[in-house]
Formats: sequence, C-alpha cells, structure tokens
Amino acid sequence: MASKVIKGGTVVTADLTYRADVRIDGGRIIEIGPDLSGDEVLDATGCYVMPGGIDPHVHLEMPFMGTYSADDFESGTRAALAGGTTMVVDFCLPSPGQSLLEALTMWDNKSTRANCDYSFHMAITWWGEQVFNDMEAVVRDKGINSFKHFMAYKGALMVDDDEMFASFQRCAELGALPMVHAENGDVVAQLQAKLMAEGNDGPEAHAYSRPAEVEGEATNRAIMIADMAGVPLYVVHTSCEQAHEAIRRAKQNGIRCYGEPLIQHLTLDESEYRHPDWDHAARRVMSPPFRNKKHQDSLWAGLQAGTLQVVATDHCAFTTEQKRTGLGDFTKIPNGTGGLEDRMPMLWTHGVATGRLTMNEFVAVTSTNIAKILNMYPKKGAILVGADADLVVWDPEKEKTISAATQQSAIDYNVFEGKAVKGLPRFTLTRGEVAIDDGAVKTREGHGKFVARQPFQAV
Amino acid sequence: MASKVIKGGTVVTADLTYRADVRIDGGRIIEIGPDLSGDEVLDATGCYVMPGGIDPHVHLEMPFMGTYSADDFESGTRAALAGGTTMVVDFCLPSPGQSLLEALTMWDNKSTRANCDYSFHMAITWWGEQVFNDMEAVVRDKGINSFKHFMAYKGALMVDDDEMFASFQRCAELGALPMVHAENGDVVAQLQAKLMAEGNDGPEAHAYSRPAEVEGEATNRAIMIADMAGVPLYVVHTSCEQAHEAIRRAKQNGIRCYGEPLIQHLTLDESEYRHPDWDHAARRVMSPPFRNKKHQDSLWAGLQAGTLQVVATDHCAFTTEQKRTGLGDFTKIPNGTGGLEDRMPMLWTHGVATGRLTMNEFVAVTSTNIAKILNMYPKKGAILVGADADLVVWDPEKEKTISAATQQSAIDYNVFEGKAVKGLPRFTLTRGEVAIDDGAVKTREGHGKFVARQPFQAV
Amino acid sequence: MASKVIKGGTVVTADLTYRADVRIDGGRIIEIGPDLSGDEVLDATGCYVMPGGIDPHVHLEMPFMGTYSADDFESGTRAALAGGTTMVVDFCLPSPGQSLLEALTMWDNKSTRANCDYSFHMAITWWGEQVFNDMEAVVRDKGINSFKHFMAYKGALMVDDDEMFASFQRCAELGALPMVHAENGDVVAQLQAKLMAEGNDGPEAHAYSRPAEVEGEATNRAIMIADMAGVPLYVVHTSCEQAHEAIRRAKQNGIRCYGEPLIQHLTLDESEYRHPDWDHAARRVMSPPFRNKKHQDSLWAGLQAGTLQVVATDHCAFTTEQKRTGLGDFTKIPNGTGGLEDRMPMLWTHGVATGRLTMNEFVAVTSTNIAKILNMYPKKGAILVGADADLVVWDPEKEKTISAATQQSAIDYNVFEGKAVKGLPRFTLTRGEVAIDDGAVKTREGHGKFVARQPFQAV
Amino acid sequence: MASKVIKGGTVVTADLTYRADVRIDGGRIIEIGPDLSGDEVLDATGCYVMPGGIDPHVHLEMPFMGTYSADDFESGTRAALAGGTTMVVDFCLPSPGQSLLEALTMWDNKSTRANCDYSFHMAITWWGEQVFNDMEAVVRDKGINSFKHFMAYKGALMVDDDEMFASFQRCAELGALPMVHAENGDVVAQLQAKLMAEGNDGPEAHAYSRPAEVEGEATNRAIMIADMAGVPLYVVHTSCEQAHEAIRRAKQNGIRCYGEPLIQHLTLDESEYRHPDWDHAARRVMSPPFRNKKHQDSLWAGLQAGTLQVVATDHCAFTTEQKRTGLGDFTKIPNGTGGLEDRMPMLWTHGVATGRLTMNEFVAVTSTNIAKILNMYPKKGAILVGADADLVVWDPEKEKTISAATQQSAIDYNVFEGKAVKGLPRFTLTRGEVAIDDGAVKTREGHGKFVARQPFQAV
Ligand SMILES: [Zn+2]
Ligand SMILES: [Zn+2]
Ligand SMILES: [Zn+2]
Ligand SMILES: [Zn+2]
Ligand SMILES: [Zn+2]
Ligand SMILES: [Zn+2]
Ligand SMILES: [Zn+2]
Ligand SMILES: [Zn+2]
Repeated sequence: MASKVIKGGTVVTADLTYRADVRIDGGRIIEIGPDLSGDEVLDATGCYVMPGGIDPHVHLEMPFMGTYSADDFESGTRAALAGGTTMVVDFCLPSPGQSLLEALTMWDNKSTRANCDYSFHMAITWWGEQVFNDMEAVVRDKGINSFKHFMAYKGALMVDDDEMFASFQRCAELGALPMVHAENGDVVAQLQAKLMAEGNDGPEAHAYSRPAEVEGEATNRAIMIADMAGVPLYVVHTSCEQAHEAIRRAKQNGIRCYGEPLIQHLTLDESEYRHPDWDHAARRVMSPPFRNKKHQDSLWAGLQAGTLQVVATDHCAFTTEQKRTGLGDFTKIPNGTGGLEDRMPMLWTHGVATGRLTMNEFVAVTSTNIAKILNMYPKKGAILVGADADLVVWDPEKEKTISAATQQSAIDYNVFEGKAVKGLPRFTLTRGEVAIDDGAVKTREGHGKFVARQPFQAV
Repeated sequence: MASKVIKGGTVVTADLTYRADVRIDGGRIIEIGPDLSGDEVLDATGCYVMPGGIDPHVHLEMPFMGTYSADDFESGTRAALAGGTTMVVDFCLPSPGQSLLEALTMWDNKSTRANCDYSFHMAITWWGEQVFNDMEAVVRDKGINSFKHFMAYKGALMVDDDEMFASFQRCAELGALPMVHAENGDVVAQLQAKLMAEGNDGPEAHAYSRPAEVEGEATNRAIMIADMAGVPLYVVHTSCEQAHEAIRRAKQNGIRCYGEPLIQHLTLDESEYRHPDWDHAARRVMSPPFRNKKHQDSLWAGLQAGTLQVVATDHCAFTTEQKRTGLGDFTKIPNGTGGLEDRMPMLWTHGVATGRLTMNEFVAVTSTNIAKILNMYPKKGAILVGADADLVVWDPEKEKTISAATQQSAIDYNVFEGKAVKGLPRFTLTRGEVAIDDGAVKTREGHGKFVARQPFQAV
Repeated sequence: MASKVIKGGTVVTADLTYRADVRIDGGRIIEIGPDLSGDEVLDATGCYVMPGGIDPHVHLEMPFMGTYSADDFESGTRAALAGGTTMVVDFCLPSPGQSLLEALTMWDNKSTRANCDYSFHMAITWWGEQVFNDMEAVVRDKGINSFKHFMAYKGALMVDDDEMFASFQRCAELGALPMVHAENGDVVAQLQAKLMAEGNDGPEAHAYSRPAEVEGEATNRAIMIADMAGVPLYVVHTSCEQAHEAIRRAKQNGIRCYGEPLIQHLTLDESEYRHPDWDHAARRVMSPPFRNKKHQDSLWAGLQAGTLQVVATDHCAFTTEQKRTGLGDFTKIPNGTGGLEDRMPMLWTHGVATGRLTMNEFVAVTSTNIAKILNMYPKKGAILVGADADLVVWDPEKEKTISAATQQSAIDYNVFEGKAVKGLPRFTLTRGEVAIDDGAVKTREGHGKFVARQPFQAV
Repeated sequence: MASKVIKGGTVVTADLTYRADVRIDGGRIIEIGPDLSGDEVLDATGCYVMPGGIDPHVHLEMPFMGTYSADDFESGTRAALAGGTTMVVDFCLPSPGQSLLEALTMWDNKSTRANCDYSFHMAITWWGEQVFNDMEAVVRDKGINSFKHFMAYKGALMVDDDEMFASFQRCAELGALPMVHAENGDVVAQLQAKLMAEGNDGPEAHAYSRPAEVEGEATNRAIMIADMAGVPLYVVHTSCEQAHEAIRRAKQNGIRCYGEPLIQHLTLDESEYRHPDWDHAARRVMSPPFRNKKHQDSLWAGLQAGTLQVVATDHCAFTTEQKRTGLGDFTKIPNGTGGLEDRMPMLWTHGVATGRLTMNEFVAVTSTNIAKILNMYPKKGAILVGADADLVVWDPEKEKTISAATQQSAIDYNVFEGKAVKGLPRFTLTRGEVAIDDGAVKTREGHGKFVARQPFQAV
C-alpha cells in the first residue's frame, strides 16, 4: 500500500494543537512532524487534522416490529464518514430468552457491509443463568466490554432493579462497563396509557409521557445500583438537568460515572413536537424526547465542566413511512432519529464557533474521551504514531445547509433540515483510506472491521 | 365532669410563648387566660404547658411471624403518655390479597385497650381492583386519609413502582396523602443474601445491607412518582443526608413533601451495631439502621430549616427473646426498637437545651406540624379554646436517667439505656384526664378513641 | 369607643381556617367565636378575615438629592391600607457622621402623619464609636431591634466587610437582627462606569449593571459574616436564584437566615427595561432590577418551601419628573418603585388563585412571619384575643384592574398598570378603625403609632 | 552532549500507559519507542516513566519581616528534584508602591541558583496606573501570564474587591490568568484580634481565626468577580468543601475556574494544631489551616471528578526559630510549611495506592494539568518528542519513612515526619540531566532556567 501524507494542516487532539504533517501507511499513522513526504499528498492547508469522530451510540438495521431501521451498516457508516465520524458502536439486542452469543452472530452478519470500523455493546434484555454465563464469553472471547440495560420499554427490553443489580455485579467481576437507558419504564407506561385514554394520541404526547423527571429518577437509581455493585456507570443519552444533576452529585461522592448528551438534545428543543405537521413531529420522536432551553444550557455546561464527557447521536433512522405506524397511537411511532452525518458539524458550529468548547474539547467529546471510556485508546481517538489512521481533515471555513436532499442516510428527512453549519470535513480517512474527498463519497463497503475491546482492570 | 385548671405555667405552642392558665372541661380546652379557676387545679409553676406530643409512626401489637410486637395498644400508649405523648398513629397492614376493610377491623379490635387517642394509616401491601375500590371506602367512611407504601421488605410488604404509581394517583383522586418507607428493596435483598453467603450473619450486617444510598435512591424515586401523580408525599423515617437532600431538592422544584426523622436517628449512631454483645446490637436493629454523625447533623439542620418537619419513633418493640429469632441470620431479626416514652425528653435534651431548636419548634415537630400534615389540626396539636385537652405540663428542670428498669414499655431493654435527660412531663393529660401525675401513672385502659381524619382538599 | 363585630366571615390565619366572628373594642380583638354581636357590624359574608398585611420594607418621604421620595407617611400608609396592609416598617437613614439618635428624631417627625401603625429599622451607614454606642440606645430605649446594612451604593450608604462584621457582632451582643441590601457595590460601580463610558446611558443599562451574580455574591458574603458573628441575618429584596441558593445552602448548614422577595420581582420581569419608552423603563428602575422567569420560579418555590419567608415592596415612589433626573445617565435615575397598594392583591392573584400558595401561606408571608421575625407577634400578625385589630376582610371575588388613575400613591404611574387582580379588601381596619370601607377611603391622618419592638433573646 | 536512554520502563502520561524506552538529547526527548539505545542507559525496569512534577505554588527565599523563608531557590529546587518535581512556579511579590518590573528583577536575582526550571506568577499587591501599565510589560515582555491576588493579609498584601475587579479586567485584556488566595481578610483580622483579646494566643487560635467559611466566601466572591470580568480564575490552596462547592457551582454555570488542593490539606488534619508541643503546632501554621476529614473527602473527590485540577504545596519553609517569632502571638507566626520533596510520594501513597486516583490522573494533577493551565504544555508536563526531558522514573516499590533528618529542605522539621511512603523516584531528570540517581543527589546549582509563558488566546 502506498503511503499518504496529510500536509500543511494543524493537528488538533484532545490536548494539543500544533502544526505538523501526518504520514500514514498500512492503515496506521507512521510519522507526525514537519515537512513529511509520501506517495500521495492530501492538502490540509487551512484545516485542522483531528482524530476521526467516534459515535458510541448507534442502531443500524435495528430490528423493529418485523422490519428494520432504515440505515444499515452500509448507509449508516457512509453517513458517519461523510460527517467526519470514522467509527460507530452499535448495540447487540438479544431477544428474550435468546443466547447473547447467538444474538451476536446476527449482528456480526449485519455489520459485514460497514464502510468504517465499528464495535458492539451487548444489551442485557433478560436475566438468567445463561445470560450470567454468556457475559463471560462475550467479554473474554468476543471483545465486548460494555453491557447496556434498558430501564424503560416495559414489556420489551426493560429489566428491573433486581436484574440490573445482578448484571452490574457481574460486570464488576468481569471488568465490564454497565450502561443504562435511564427512564422509569413503569411510570412511562402508565403515562402513555393515560394520555391515550384521554385522546392524546399525537407525537406531542410522546414528550408528555417521558418528562425529565422520569429520566432524572432512573439515572439516580442506576448510579446508586452501580455504586452498590462497585462498578462505574455509563448513562446513555443524558438529556436533562435532572439526570445531569444526579451524575454531578454522584461524582462529588467519589463515584465514577459518565454522561452522554446527544447532538439532538444539545441543539433541538421540545417546540418541535408542537409542529402542526404530524410527520414533522413524529420524525423527531425519540427517547428521551427533546427538552427545553434550560436543559440545553445544563448539557453544554456539563461538556465544558467535564461532568458530561461525550456527544453521541443514538442514530436510529426510520422513514416517514415507518413513523406512520404510529398514526393514531403515539406509542407505536418507532423511536429514533438520524444524526450520524450531522453530529460533528453541528457540534462544531454550536459549540466551538460560539466559544462554548475549545477545539481540544471538541476532539475529546467526539472521539478521545469515548475511546478511553470504551477502552480502545489510543488505537482509536488519537493522533499518535501507531494509532489507526482514522482521521478527519476539518475545514473550518467549509459551509453547507443541512438537507435530506443531499444526505447519505437512507431516510427521507433530516431533523436538522435547514440548519446552516460551518466547519466540515475536507477529507475523512478510515484506517488510511480516503472515504470522503472534498465532498466526494469514496467509501468502500465492507472495509470496516470489528474493533475488539479488552475488559478493564479492576479499579 | 369537673373542670380542671392548669395554673401558673407558660403556654408554649408552635408559634407563641406566654403566661396563661388553661381551663379544661368535657375533655376540651374551654378557656385560656390569666387567673382562671376550676374544680381541680394542676400546678404548672415553672413549667411549660404544651400540646401533647403526637407520634405519627408506631406499630403496636404488630403481627410478626406468628407472634406480635411486644407493646400493644395498652402498654404502648401508657409509655407514650409517660413521656408526654398523647396520641399515636399506627399502621393497618393488610395481608396480601386481604381486603383493606377486613384488615381495619382487626386493627380496630386491637386498639380498644388504648390509653390515649390514636389514628391509623392504611398500608397498600398489594394492588388490584379491590384495593382500588377499598381505598375510597377507607377515606370516605373510615376516617383515614393516609396510605403507606413499602419500597422494601421484598416478598412481603413491598410494592413495585407500577403499583406505587397507581396507588399514588388514586390518593390524588381521593385527597389522601401517600407515605413511603423508602429503601430499594431489590438491592437490600441481594445485599442481604450476599452478606449471608459471605458468613456475615450478625446484627452489624443488618446495617451493611441497608446503606444510606439505598434510602436516598428510594426517597428520590418516590418523590418523582408522587410528583407525576400530582400528590404530596410523606417520607417516613428519613434517616440520612441522601434522603434529606432528595427532599430539599424536590421542595426547591415546588414539590410538596415531608420528611420524618426518628428520635433514634437523631441521637444514636451506627457504632451501636459494633457492640460485642449480640443482644445489644440486635436490639438496635431497625430499618433504616442508625447512621453516622454526618447524617445526624443533616437531620438536625433539616428540623431547624424546616426541610424536615416532624420527629417520630417507629416504635415497634420486640423483646430480646423475639430478637433472638435472628441468631445466626440477621435477616430474621425482627426490625424495630422502642422510643415512645423517650422521644420528647430526648428531643428536648438534645434539641432545645443545646440551642438547636426553639421551644416553639419543639412543639411544632413533636405535635403541631404532625396534626396539620395529617389533617387533624386544631383538634389535636393546639392549645386553643375548643381543642382536645391533650396536654403536657413540661418541667424543664425534672431529670432522670433512661432505663428499662423503670420504663412503661413491655420489653426488657431500652435503646437509650443510661442516657440522662432533663425536661420531663409533670402532668400529661389525655382529653382532660390526668394520665401522668408527677411520675405516677394513672392511665385508663380503653380511654383512647380513634381520631377520624378527613381527606384533603385538592391543592 | 363602640365595639365592632366582623360577622359571617371565615377567619384565615397562618395556621387555621375557620368560620367565626371577630369582636373588637379599644383597638384590639376582644372575642372570636360564633354569633358575636357589637355596636357596629361589618358584614364579612363570603370573605376571609385575615391579619392585616405588614410591609417590612418601605421608604416614605425618603431624602434624595435635595428632595424626597413622593409618597410620604400619609399617602404611603393610605395606599397600604387601600391594599389591605395595616403596618409598614421604614428605614431610618443617618447621614455619614450623623448620630443615630438624631436621625431617628428626623424620622419620628416625618411619621406623625401616618394613617396606620409603623416601625423603623435603623441603617448603619457609617461606623465609629458613636455608632457602636448609639446602637445600644436604639435597641434599649427606642424600640428598634433591626439594623440595615447596604453592601451597595458605593460612596453613599455602603459599608465594607470590616464595618459590617463589627456591626453584626454588636447586633449579636444587643439581641438585634442585622439586615442587608446585598449587592457587591464595588463591582456595580465599575460596571456602571463602564456602561456609561460605552454610551449605554439608558434605563436598560441599570439592569446590566446589577446582574444576579453580584446579588448572589453579596448575599453569600453577608451570610458568612453573620454566621461568624453568631447572629441570624435578614436579606432584603431577595430577587434571584443565586441569592436564594445562598440562603438555602446556609440553612442546610444550620444557619438562621431570612429572605424577602418583593412582589415586583415575583410578577414582573426584565423585559420591562427593554420598553422603547424611556419613562416606562425608568419608572421600573430599582435595585435589584427585575429578573427573568427562572428567577421568578425560584422565588415562588422558596415561598412554598419556606426557604424564603416574607413578601415586601421596597416601596419608594418617585414621580416621572424625579425619574427624569437620570435622562442621559442611568446612574442618576432615582431607585425605587411603588407597590404598597398592590402587594396583597397581586400576591393573592398570582399566588393563591394559581395554587402556588395556600391561603394560610399567604397570611404567613404577608403578615405573620414578618411579625414573628421582627419580634412584634402576636400584637401584630395574629387573629387572637388581645392582638391589635389590624385586620383585612378579604373578598376573593372582588376584582379590579390596577391603574395609576385610581391609586392612592402620590405618583403618576403604577408599575402594575393594567394588571387585573381578583381578591381585594372589603374592609381594612387599623387598630379597630375602618380605614377602607368597600373602596371608600376613610383613613385618618396621624392615627398611626410607632410600634416598639423588643430585642431578641440570645439564641 | 551524550544521549541518554531510559530503558525498560512503562511510560505513564496523563492519558496513556505503555511500554517504551525514552531517548534524550540536548535536554529534550528525541525518541520514544521500543529498544532504543544511547550513550548512557538509565534502567527503568519495574518503573513508571512519568513527566516530572510541576509545583505551581512555592515561595522560595520569600522576604518576611526583615528575613527570608529558609528554603531558597537552591535548597528548594533540590528538595523538589529529590521528590520527583522538576519545575516550580514562585510568586514575585512587589512591595506597596513598587514597580512590578523592579520587583521582578529582585526575584530574577534570587532564582539564579535554581537546580531545576522555574517560572513566576506576579502578585498584584497594590493598584494604580503604574501597575496597570506594568501588567502589560510583564505579560508581553517578561513571560508571565498569571497574576496573584491576596484577599487576606489585611494591611499587607491584601487588595479589595475594587482593585481586584480592575485587575481581573486587565487580565482579560492581556490574556492573563488571575489567581487568588481566597480568605476574607477583614473577617480574619477581626477574628485574630478577638482571639488575642481573649487570651488565645497559641497556634491553635490560628486555625480558629481562619475557618472554612471565610475561605468559601472569598472563593465565591473571586469567582463572581472573574465572571464579571470575563476571565477564568485559578484558586490557589483550595482547602475545604465550601471553596470546592463554590467552584463546582461556578463550573455548572459555564464558568471556567480551577482549584488547587495542597498535599498537606489532602493528608493532614486540624488535630495537628491541638498538639501539646507549641513547636509542633506552630510548624503546621499555614493559611488556610489544615481542616477536618469531611474537607479531605471533598478534595479527594474533586480530584477524581475533575472539579479540582492540580495538587501543589505552597512550600514556604520557616525554621522552628523563625516560627518562634510568634510565641505569645499566633498572628506573628510566619505562615508556611514545607512539602516540595514529599508532594509526589505522599500523593502516590494516599491517592494511587489506595485506588482513589489512577496513575494517569496522578500525572495529570501533579504535572500535565498544571502545564496546560499555565500555558507551557507540551514543553513541560508531557512525554512527547520535542518536550523538555523533565522526567521522573518512578519506582512503585521503593519505600521510605519521611523525616527531617534525611530531607533536602533547609528546615529542621517536616510536617509529614514519620509518614511511610511507598512509591519514590529512582531517577529524576531535569532537562536531560540526572539530578537524582537512586537516592544520590546530583543536582547542579544554576542549572535551572526561567520558563517564559505566553499569554492565552481570548476564549
Ligand atoms: Zn435509549
Ligand atoms: Zn439507543
Ligand atoms: Zn419502615
Ligand atoms: Zn414503621
Ligand atoms: Zn435596597
Ligand atoms: Zn429599600
Ligand atoms: Zn496563600
Ligand atoms: Zn502561597
């Protein structure tokens, strides 16, 4: 393979900003320094050379009511690369009673078409001796060190406190990281039923059925259970001050926990659900729902202060057609929005350009912190000799207006439609291959490989 | 009935301190003012005339593993009166599947021997249409406006979030007040099993199995559920900073909720469980367990600041013999301690005499606030014309050392054994009858009557 | 004097709601009960009979740049009575170097025209041996037990930390209550200069020069200094979450402190300063300035939770003509607004009618808590036999639209202009005399008397 | 100069842990990788190769009452190197009225004897046009980008809010970082006078005169002033929960601020001042004084959570003889303790070995964070090619008991006397020169150079 040099740019990592060229060979960074040369030159003049983004929370080709979420590993990772993201972490979701290993085989099969590297979290959707035993195999043999628990979606994915505590203790034994979707599923289910009974069947009722209070409560509960199990905790899609407050309070008590705001919650608000067009509102249905400005302020401050560590998307794209399953019953609207292509430009535009975040913090929350928390640093998330050449050459002057018409995602709309962004990839490289070349999509299906992640040391 | 006059004292209520005599007839206060006369005179010189104490949380003759807690309505209320408490509120505990009304009949039968007035909270120990319907009868016909929910005691009294939310919504409809025993029962049960499996079977393991974190979590959860149901919440035996913090935070969000420290948690600490004598430690086994000084400071500050409102005992007395059921298995030690006779003198000694609480605050937290919260003010908890003559004539100079040898309670020990108190009743009157006369016990079995409490208005 | 009976109403106090008539003679309440009769009957059918309001914070005929604030003790107390307030507490403001006693003589002279009772706080505007000595005379001989300290108004009323700590310690010795106007005067002065230098000379710059942060800081500082001096603290015009948070935090550390939101800050917001009409905006100039909704929510929750205790007005009325002194220089706009007539109807309308406060809480925060904190309970703030007959017969159905055209205040505008209120006095009585009779003003100049207030006991 | 290779160790930085050799030439790191060779080999088998410690807060040869603190730049930096610290930052303290530049010349003269690199913070001890102008020269020409402000030491170093706000605004203009010694100097001065007047003249009174409350207050005030000035803030010697809470609260409001616990406050407590030996207690006199366990817990949690960022010593060593100046008057005891040699071993022993901090966090708080905050990263605080070879080869198995008998510091005692530490330098290198060689001291006087630090970019 011929070597490449990214020339003339400014390297920006989570803790450094400096002028240097980056030489790549064999999919890895082999040299960083001034005046490098190679077989191929990528001009980074006026650009920042950053670790490619990592999205720790996506659902590609996720099974849903006999069908699948619209973006599969091919279109999803293509969208990711187009936006400067070079790795995604998906969730393997066993059916009730299904072996974790069997489920993993299904996910392995889906992911063969990926354009960029990926990894998996394993979900604990039921509990029993088999799950207990499978967890060890998953950690020891399958390169997965993180287990997701749903505190909502009653009757489907939800586990109760008893199961969650058992699983968290198992995580502690195995050196694995528990994760939670934190909403009180019992309360949500009753609020849903009540709203439907009152004739509130539209998408706005989705938001009413999942207030910030139920998320704050569940976050607080999961943290306590993790603390009792002696294991850190990763809280996915932290969307509100209540959940963030629980995390801050825990940290001040010496507890290790992580919070993951989504780019959607940072930049969109609950007024979207009041849109007169059912389709407009339904397309924004996700859990937790969008919140108000007070919550957005809290999330931004958390990223600044370091009490929240990473920004994700929970990308789970359903077409308008699929969304319409929930016409007349908001509880049947498939939960999820897109975002993979837009996370980095939106965060740059609303975070870095506004002065909220430094460029180094941008890299930290989109890539480096994630790689560290998920135990794949510095293979991923770094610009270091030996690291994978997952890189984005970021042009801070490049602009566009986000639109479904020009996006990579398979769906027919974009929740950020019409938003102007400034700051976009000039090049995106996945293990040294140029996947995005000044707007031209050169992704290669099947190029992406699974990234095995080792268990953690006992703290 | 002949009239009585309490002469020469200083009336102390929750908001006033003034010199006045109090005239009583027909069980009620009929006049307050200077220089009153009556058929019988009680000399209050040098004393404070205060509303008799109300203990909102007792368990008399409580069924337990085929036997009963040792203090019944006779000995329990005798102990209460000896310590200046003139009313108790017990908990009616239906068995799983049992009708609330049937259970209430059982409790009515037990309470006929009471020496002072009493009322009941109804516990929701299971859920179903019958319970839903019975709740209305209990509120409308039976004079009970408060429903207790156990978030612990898994497999016995515990209800889950789903049941609790349903019940709280029912309370909102009926104008009733939900109450919770707040500990995460799932986590406690696993911690118990783990401790036993590790060979930790002694009373100290009881405390290890119920850390402050599990109480704080459950308190926070119950508050959220009450908030979603649109109903205030009463948290029984608030023992720790974590639970108190949840209450404070809720109040600052405009939520109405109440916290009830016990006199035990205010004055005794976890070191008791490290006592080498099994009996000593086992006698202190209650839930939540005693905590450390940090938690005590938090509770005292809460009483001062008004973020905690009332002081109770959770009096549930088991003999040493009964406690020994748990030899070799701490989970079988019956939970509960005494305190009815000691609550007022201990709180005066450690609260008023130390300057932490004013005398008016003492009255508020031992009596008036309770009467208001439980909706029986000013019949109870007041020194007003027309109010029940439940009074204590408090001698701030009277001293004793607490001892099982001299107590009214039927059990063979006292958790406050050896504590010196200064400030004791000279007289205790229950509806105008002198039950305690300078140390002499003149209680009359069966004198006590049930106090019906009306539902609340919608807020 | 002939006796009066208020018949047919519902008595509402800080802790009771009950049907009763109230009989008055000699300026005091002499009987409370059913079916009373007297020489004169005031029909309270459909009304609530409540303790008259007490405004703990007014400035009548306050000296200002060679002139005086427009409402003097006559018009000011007339406005008060028209709105159901039956007592005001003004501030005696010695000039630098002036004896406290000499200043008090000046205030005594002004207050002879009062239509209702009044008392004084003494301001500490400079420090020295004479002030130290005068403080004792003020407390022992002059019936004043509260001392105000300005942390802002640099170069005029402001005292520094050194003086404030000395004065607070003196308060502790004398059993007096220190009060603070809490804003960091150094920072405000520089912000003012900076804004003027930048050409921001309009009323909106007043708000920019006094952000919530400077109030929160000063509140926190004053609380610490009081704590070190071992004395409680009363924080006047608490207008923001930052100040409220400092108070809450202090209370949880066992510190006794009080916060006083103004009715203006509870119901008006900062958008007023953006009004295009200079006069409109300038009329709203007061310190602290109006805040945003977040701060309003915090204040309302504080009144509910009891972390804030009283509602005042800081009534200090300047005419539009006087306000125009500050044309071209916002720092010269006299600080102050009206409110005496509107406090009670506005609080009822926005507090009780909305469900935020109970009627009993309304009485507490407008009257009873104030009387207790300032040590004049139950002479004032109570409906008890023997208490002053300062009463308001409140008609919850009576409505009006607030307007300068119909107000008692001497000024030519009203900051609540156009606000509809429901809930107004049918009668207001000052020491038994009917001052307001269903809208008719029957105040009597010079009827008002000084209310002496005794020092506090050492805690 | 001959090249050196550190062989066989594990490189530990703030974000990486990996096996590698490190090659050094010309005082810099020139290569990092496996199997390196060089002219000289340092055996790092079993060791961690870490960035040398940076102490951001020392006072060497500090003028004091006509004499100087006992450790000068020679002995102080020798002690530093012996403990693994390779750079110190001292404070240039102008006298009142003295030009900043003139003072700097004095400090430049003292520092010529330094054994390791150093930099300066400039103190603002008075205010005026000259200071305003000198600040620019200091930043632009003298390589100093941080200005210290004393909120205590009234009548000596203290500046008031007005001066501090002016200076902070100047810092904002210049891209400089303001720092504060945060204690309320007015309150401290009066408490000191009061204690002396009461006959409390011993060292224990020092602690009574500077309670945590006065530190918390000043911290909160300085943060507000910095926020108003639009500049970040660095709070030196954060010793208590109150100060830490102010920092946490600020961060959650989006304010950038830093807190610096000292190793003394992390590991020693207030009981030291109750020691019967005057000398023992007086040797521990520093400001803020040692606190209790609650505060220690808060500081450790802050380091873990990232709400506190760095660990320093405030090394300012006075001999027992010098301390005795304060016999009979604790206010005259020179403030300061040692610590330079002990910071790293004590933090490792009590932080890393106990599981509170990871090794990477250890590097961050002792070195890398400091270098970043003070804008000298990655020249200092990094193990990167091109970085200064300020390195410590840390042997986690090496043990000793701290004792004055074996220390480098010039004073006759050590506040950590008798503490066992495990984890000590095998080698310490300053710009490539081995200063400490397995216990042997090979420092070279005058080797140390001033490190110029550029101003910050506007945020
Ligand atoms: Zn989710
Ligand atoms: Zn998801
Ligand atoms: Zn219980
Ligand atoms: Zn109980
Ligand atoms: Zn003011
Ligand atoms: Zn005022
Ligand atoms: Zn200092
Ligand atoms: Zn220092």
